[in-house]
Amino acid sequence: MSREKPVVVVVEPETPGNVGTIARAMKNFGLSELKLVNPPEITRNSEAYGFAGHAREDVLPSAETVTLESVIENYHTVGCTAITNEDSRRHTRYPFTTPRRLAESLKTVETRTAIVFGREGTGLNNEELERLDEVCSIPASESYPVLNLGQAATVVLYELRGLTVDETQLPDVERTRAEEREIERLYDFFDAFLDASGYNERKRAKTNRLIRRLVGRAHPTDREVNTLLGVFRRANERLRDGRESADEVANDGGRR
Amino acid sequence: MSREKPVVVVVEPETPGNVGTIARAMKNFGLSELKLVNPPEITRNSEAYGFAGHAREDVLPSAETVTLESVIENYHTVGCTAITNEDSRRHTRYPFTTPRRLAESLKTVETRTAIVFGREGTGLNNEELERLDEVCSIPASESYPVLNLGQAATVVLYELRGLTVDETQLPDVERTRAEEREIERLYDFFDAFLDASGYNERKRAKTNRLIRRLVGRAHPTDREVNTLLGVFRRANERLRDGRESADEVANDGGRR
Repeated sequence: MSREKPVVVVVEPETPGNVGTIARAMKNFGLSELKLVNPPEITRNSEAYGFAGHAREDVLPSAETVTLESVIENYHTVGCTAITNEDSRRHTRYPFTTPRRLAESLKTVETRTAIVFGREGTGLNNEELERLDEVCSIPASESYPVLNLGQAATVVLYELRGLTVDETQLPDVERTRAEEREIERLYDFFDAFLDASGYNERKRAKTNRLIRRLVGRAHPTDREVNTLLGVFRRANERLRDGRESADEVANDGGRR
Repeated sequence: MSREKPVVVVVEPETPGNVGTIARAMKNFGLSELKLVNPPEITRNSEAYGFAGHAREDVLPSAETVTLESVIENYHTVGCTAITNEDSRRHTRYPFTTPRRLAESLKTVETRTAIVFGREGTGLNNEELERLDEVCSIPASESYPVLNLGQAATVVLYELRGLTVDETQLPDVERTRAEEREIERLYDFFDAFLDASGYNERKRAKTNRLIRRLVGRAHPTDREVNTLLGVFRRANERLRDGRESADEVANDGGRR
């Protein structure tokens, strides 16, 4: 990915712990450039390092102290806030985007972007937001929409992962559906199983359909289908053996 | 929404702070039932209350201590972990879903669901995961996929908000695009503005198209279009006045 990754800016964070939390989220979601406006002192034995996880090795120690002016001059700026204006009469916090729509929109443009977060207590103030290019707000519960600073940053950076994470720990395709031929064999085995079990003949077609729906929507893997084929092959053999023995007993009985 | 909301279960949290962070995320995203398996002592002056925000008033004090067994018996359980098995030979951590796919899939089914998180240090162990119904993993950077417990919970609960948040603080439709007739008037005003400014006649059509593209993709509001109509109306009047004055001066000059 050649795209330039966003930088993260925190304006006047009050507690080193939150700076550490943000640094960790940055590393979790593939970001590295952290810029702080008027930060508290961040020492090696502060909570910032305690909360940063592995980001204590790189993101946090290379965080840079900057002015908001320098960020505004050099980046496309997105200010994050829980509090928006809801109609078009005031433009300080309106219109706004959401983290998901922000991720979509940044995908379509090559730009240096700064994601800007505000203080724990009061967030970004109006004077700051007025100077930023976009406003972004996390949809949350109307009755308590204000996330903690570190948690808000985590959500926003999580949503931007499509732009910032080159490779996740998860495989691209989690699993492959077993071949249809094998799945059909499973349905045949299951039908034979109903037969061998002496299942009610009138319900059989309906129950076969039910199994087809259940297995069908679970998108079984090779392994799952093979294991189940084994389970039913064995059960069917046993059921047939049992029936034959029973038949023999019955026949014996008849002969006696 | 009549759907039963998921409950959140934390197995052996080590630090009260993370319990508080999770309680806050729950309240931010519309959840209320927190269940703790073998938790640390959580006192009113512990970090749990410090980190819980307004959730200190309800979610946190009503958290219940439970056994994992009782959760497994009574809920559809989803275990969250950063570490998955990547192929179908082992089923403890495979197949797995992501928070976004989990939200999609829970939308289609009425069920009591428990979202289960593990310890800070080691997460959920294999014995625990084997007994849970689904495995969920947050896609993160391959080089550091392990989120802090509180941050992981925040991301998962954020993704589930479609099931759990009745009303967000954001309006359903953020803004309404101005009426097309008004936007067309803006383009007319802009064209008149180019004319009145003495803009190069050969470039005029091209520049009009450029403006149509720029304004078109910004989906302007009523307010924005009206303000711009006012800006150009005034500018066009001035430009025409200036031209008339200039014409008069030119005519006067001619008469002299």
